[in-house]
Order: sequence, then structure tokens, then C-alpha cells
Amino acid sequence: MNAELIAVGTELLMGQIVNTNARHLSRRFAEMGVNVYWQTVVGDNPGRLSDAIRLAAGRADLVVLTGGLGPTTDDITRDVLAHVTGRKLATDRAALEKIRRFYEERRMPMPESNARQAQYVEGGEPLPNDTGMAVGTALEHEGKLYVLLPGPPREMEPMFDRYARPWIERRLNGELPIFSRMLKFAGIGESSLEAALEDLFRGQTDPTLALYAGDGTVTLRATTRAADRAEADRRMEPVVAEIRRRAGAHLFAEEDVGLEEAVVRLLAEKKLTLSVAESCTGGLLGQLVTSVPGSSAVFYGGVIAYSNEWKTKGLGVPQELLDGPGAPGAVSAETAEAMAAGLLRLTGTDAAVAITGVAGPAHSEAKPVGLVYAALAARGEPVRTDRLNLTGGRDGIRLRAARHALYRLWQWAKEKP
Amino acid sequence: MNAELIAVGTELLMGQIVNTNARHLSRRFAEMGVNVYWQTVVGDNPGRLSDAIRLAAGRADLVVLTGGLGPTTDDITRDVLAHVTGRKLATDRAALEKIRRFYEERRMPMPESNARQAQYVEGGEPLPNDTGMAVGTALEHEGKLYVLLPGPPREMEPMFDRYARPWIERRLNGELPIFSRMLKFAGIGESSLEAALEDLFRGQTDPTLALYAGDGTVTLRATTRAADRAEADRRMEPVVAEIRRRAGAHLFAEEDVGLEEAVVRLLAEKKLTLSVAESCTGGLLGQLVTSVPGSSAVFYGGVIAYSNEWKTKGLGVPQELLDGPGAPGAVSAETAEAMAAGLLRLTGTDAAVAITGVAGPAHSEAKPVGLVYAALAARGEPVRTDRLNLTGGRDGIRLRAARHALYRLWQWAKEKP
Repeated sequence: MNAELIAVGTELLMGQIVNTNARHLSRRFAEMGVNVYWQTVVGDNPGRLSDAIRLAAGRADLVVLTGGLGPTTDDITRDVLAHVTGRKLATDRAALEKIRRFYEERRMPMPESNARQAQYVEGGEPLPNDTGMAVGTALEHEGKLYVLLPGPPREMEPMFDRYARPWIERRLNGELPIFSRMLKFAGIGESSLEAALEDLFRGQTDPTLALYAGDGTVTLRATTRAADRAEADRRMEPVVAEIRRRAGAHLFAEEDVGLEEAVVRLLAEKKLTLSVAESCTGGLLGQLVTSVPGSSAVFYGGVIAYSNEWKTKGLGVPQELLDGPGAPGAVSAETAEAMAAGLLRLTGTDAAVAITGVAGPAHSEAKPVGLVYAALAARGEPVRTDRLNLTGGRDGIRLRAARHALYRLWQWAKEKP
Repeated sequence: MNAELIAVGTELLMGQIVNTNARHLSRRFAEMGVNVYWQTVVGDNPGRLSDAIRLAAGRADLVVLTGGLGPTTDDITRDVLAHVTGRKLATDRAALEKIRRFYEERRMPMPESNARQAQYVEGGEPLPNDTGMAVGTALEHEGKLYVLLPGPPREMEPMFDRYARPWIERRLNGELPIFSRMLKFAGIGESSLEAALEDLFRGQTDPTLALYAGDGTVTLRATTRAADRAEADRRMEPVVAEIRRRAGAHLFAEEDVGLEEAVVRLLAEKKLTLSVAESCTGGLLGQLVTSVPGSSAVFYGGVIAYSNEWKTKGLGVPQELLDGPGAPGAVSAETAEAMAAGLLRLTGTDAAVAITGVAGPAHSEAKPVGLVYAALAARGEPVRTDRLNLTGGRDGIRLRAARHALYRLWQWAKEKP
């Protein structure tokens, strides 16, 4: 099977946003063994969108459209697909009910245009939207498959994974499916990991191996085609075992989970609790931890110690560490340690993590941008402090600092009974 | 003039990289007044690339190709364009010299394939590559314009700006450039804003108006063609003034800035300081504020009060509000107020903002997912508390809650002298 992706939206043609939906869907189709030969972007224009759909249907088996399912008058994708296929629009009663209830609960009148979001192309199946209002459509028409998805990634991704993907997979006949294993690493860079595994990468054709770097984590994907999961696993296990042997100290998960999720799960499993003290990350570490559902079982809370005064008043960091002649300053191993130790005393959690550093763009205390200290304090153990030199701009430095702290926490918790 | 962008590369179709070149070029063309109606991505396949070029030349005046100019055998873009236009390849002597010198200086033999990077399509002009090896091509053929650019952004961007853009602009006869104004709104949904401005949207052809929703903010863009910025502003001002009159209470910026940046700037301008107390957002509000460079001038810090115990110990929220028979509970107006008031006492900032709520996926205290309270305490003023019903999954609810708090802070600071 081969697919064409059509992203609909003048904001893409004006360069206001990047087409990340194309990347997400292309990755998914690569996993599924569906070839993507074309990606197209077209504006909110009925004539050109009709042309794009007809052209795609002429050269692909599956046409996936993203965007233009909202309530406003320039959201035209479902109308144009209905027009091109000579069909009407139908209303998904459950979705309409959900929209109505939303407004009722808020005691607001429902703008009439909102009902459009409950429509799908007649003869197809409505695809539920678990994270928004607009339903999608999955349609077979004259031997071609059409899938309509919303534009915002946080609506598009769950709709594709939960509803569109299984619908498409049921229509993949005879092609051996692709199976993948994901290995997730932290505390090691992409090129160091590649160097450690170089001969494996060079010699390997089945499964194929690929590396992707995120901010502070690296993902290795092994992929093979097989009749079933068990056969795929048998083929992948020898190389995975070798990777585990060489880089196991950095391997925090053997499935597609984020570092924060792996850490929260591990802490929960070992019944350990956590608090955080953040200077340059300003709340990011807490936000990452609490992005994991169920994190309240392990996360106590913390202190965003951005100003020096609040480091002293809120965490008990001695004033003489922060300023005065010869003081190590806010960005120092001493201050990171005092933050972590002070927080541990205040919260009584099993571990307390502290981060202080220079995220930039301006340096501070005559210290370079990217210099970060991360400290981990635990009851009855000496405080461990790392000095990091990070790159990647203000956002990248902050994210890598937070992910480094999570990696150290994972290492620490791993050793606990 | 209208343009089609064709990005060439199987790595785009596999989802390994995002097509950021399309965004960069689209922005530039918007500035230049060139309409981009289509963006296409195609793999390193001669047949499909030929089809893509022919199709683009049939519907656009200018075809811009990025990628596939390197030395390896899957770099085929220049060969395919030569084939489609029935031309040969010529060698740019200066570029070839530069490649030879590169290898000589490193005392390495030049791989023969590297000479290909000095080739351009005969009859066109070679475009110099100041940051890499591969030259581009600018070609007029049968009334259409073709521009070939390398794929890596740090080669493509300077080549476009320095050489391709002036070459295209010399061929833009008489068309006026496009000018835009951005208006940014918060505290109002996309459809409510559209309803408030419906007649303007309906009646408006010059400038044109378009709405885009983010998480908790909405952007309105007004666009017109004019000889210069001053003329464009004169034409846009009446409709912008009317929008300001109707929705000014939500209009936090008249340029393309985020809400957090607008809030930090406003607080800095008015010399006001801020602290935050976060329960369900877990540090996100602090993270958003501190994502703005220079936020240390206004941001003192805060408390991530995730557990009830830390709400009491870290913020002084009375125990009897949190549990016991008849207690309002952690997710209540009373607790939000006590968090904000307690934080204000501890930090002594001009304003203290508190958020508590149910981000989901599980509800808590028998309260529904999406129920959030946001409170703002300021010295000598009664605490203001909002009750919100938010949607969008755990991440969406948290982001909208934080953006709502920022919006209220903006409103509050706006009134200050």
C-alpha cells in the first residue's frame, strides 16, 4: 500500500507553522510498512484542495488529509472531500452531544457553527476525537481509502493512533507487517552511542537499526518484517542483547516511553518520593514529572528558587554562598548542594533534586551560558553533584538540564531495593 | 507571481526530518509578495521527481527545489531538472576550484563524485554556496523560473537570501509586496472571537483577515498588498481600530509575541514582581514565565504545591480546607485563594498567582477533569479567583490553565500605573 499526505492550511503556506504532522504520520507509516511517496501542502482553497485530492487519489491507495476540520468558515476539508467523492455530510450524534454538553456545562450558548465539527463524510466512519471536538472520517470510495484528521497535533496524534491506524491496518492485505523495538537511552549523546555500537550498525541489515536524538535522550529503533510479533522478537533479540550488554547503564526503557515516565514508574515501583528545587529550569523539571499521569504517588512538590532571596528564604541556602567577596555564587556546586539538602530537610522526601545554572542568552555571575549544576540529595547519603556544560539555546539547555537530573534520579532509584 | 516549493528527500518521506525549509522559504515569499499555493515533498526517485517538476511548472510561475544536490548517487535533483528541461549540465569553474582546494589543503584525494557538486543546469546561472560545496541553479525555461537550492538549512538559507532572492525579485514585474499585522488575543476562544467580529470577516476583502488558535491564545492576521509599510498601515488601520474597539480587553499584543513574553514585558515596564504557586500545573506556569529571556527582572520564584502536605507546610494553606468532613478540598476556590494569599505573605512580591485543579486523566476528590481554580493575590487588593472548565487532555488542560493565569495577570498589570 502507498499513501499520500495532504496537509491543508494557509498558515503552512505562509510559513507560520511547520508541517510536523507530516513527520509524525510518515514515521507511523514507515512502522506500518506503508510507503509514503508524496506529501503535499495546500491552502484553505476549495478549488486547489479538490485538485490535490483528485491528484492524490490518482497516484496513491490511501489519501490522508490533516487540518481544516474546525468550526470556522475557512475550515473546508470535510466539505471538499464530500464534494469530490459526490457524497453528503452526516452528523455523528455522539460527537454533537459532546459539543452540546460542553457548552451546557459552561452555561454558554453553543455557536451554531460548532455543530459542523460533529460532521463526517457520509458512507464513511466517524473517527472519535478524544482530545478535542472535531471528528474525523475514514472512508472507502471507488477502491481508494481516505482518512480525514484534525490539524492540531494533540488531536491528530491520538485520533490516528487509536482509530485511523487500526482501520488502515485492517485493509493492509498480504503485506508482512513491520515490527519495531524501541530502546531508550539517557545520559549519553547520539554520537557516543553510535560509536559504541558502530560495528553493529555497519553489519546490520535485518533487523535494521536507526538512531534518533531528542533533547537529552536517544532512541534506537530496531525494525523487521515478520509474520508475527514472536517471530520478529526472535530475530531481534540477539542484537538487542548485545546492545544491552554494551550500553545498558544508559538504557532506561525498552519501549517507547519518555524518561520522565520511566522515572515516575520506577519511583512508584520502589515506593520512593521526590521533591525538586529549580533555579534556571524555573519549574520545567516539576512540569515534566507531573506531565506523567499518576505522578502524585511519588511527587511531593518543590520550590522554584529563581531569585537569590527565595533560595535563602524558601530553601535555607546560606546567604554567604550566594553573594559577597569570594562567594561561589548562585551557579555553583555548593549552592546546588545546599538547595538539594535544604529541600530534603523541608520536605522529608526520599530524594530531593536541585538544578542551578546559566540558561542564557546572557551569562550571569561571569559564568558561561550552558554551565549547570545538578544535585541529588537522599536521606543518609552524601549529596551527588554534577557539573554540566550544555548547548542548544535557552530552551535546549533547560530541557537537557532537567533530563540530566531525571537520568541521575533513574540511576539512583535503580540501585534501591 | 506564484511559486511551488518541492522538497526532495526520502528522509522527509520517512519522517526522519521535518521540512523546515518549506517554512523558511514560505515566509520569505510572503514578504516578497509571491504567493505559495503548493508545497510538495517527493523522494529521491527520478520518475516521481520528474512528475513533480512537470506538475509544478504547469501550475506555478516559479518552481523552487530544495535538496538532492550532494555528491552521492541518490542526489539526483540537478540531473532530473536537466532531463525535464532537455538541457545538459555545465560546470562552475570557481566552485570546482573551491572543492579541489578543500581537499588539497587537507592533503586528501578528492573523490571523483565530488565534482558533481560544481555542476548547474546549462543556460541557467550557478548560485554560489558560501557555506558549503554544492552550487545551486537559477534557470528561465519556456517562460517559467526554476531555482535549485541545497537541502541543509545552513546552506540553503544564505544561498536563497544572497543570490536566489535578488534573482527572483528582478523578475517580479510590478507586483506589490504583501504586508501583515498580527493581533494576539487571550482569555477568549477562537469561535467566540470570530462571532464577535463576524461581520468584519464577512465584509472584508482588503485587508484580508484570518484567525489561528493556539493553546489558550488566538492570533488574527490582517494582510494587504501595498507599495510600502506606511500605505499598508493606512489601509489596515480602520479595521484594526474596529477590532480593538470590540475585543480590546483580550488583545494582549499587536505583534507576533507569545502571551508569556507580553506579560513579562508588561510587568518589567511597570516594575512589578511575581511569584507562583502551582498544584495541577506542577511548575508549568513558572517554566513558561522563565522561558522568556530577562524574566529574572520580574520573577521571584514560587512553590510547586503538588501534595496536600506541601500546600500546608510550604504555603500555609489551613489543613481544614484540604481534608476532613465538609472541607472544600484541594481543588476549590478557597484553597486557590489560600495558596495565593499564603505565597504573597511568604514572597512579598507585587502579585502572587495560584493554580489548583484536576488535569486528569483520573478525577480527584469526586471533581471533574478540567475543573481548575486560578487565583491572583496582590498587596492591598481582594484575591480574585476564577473557576475554569477546561478541555484538551492532561497537557492541554494544564497549558490552558497556565495561559489563563497569565491572561489574568496581564489584565491586572494593565490597570497599574
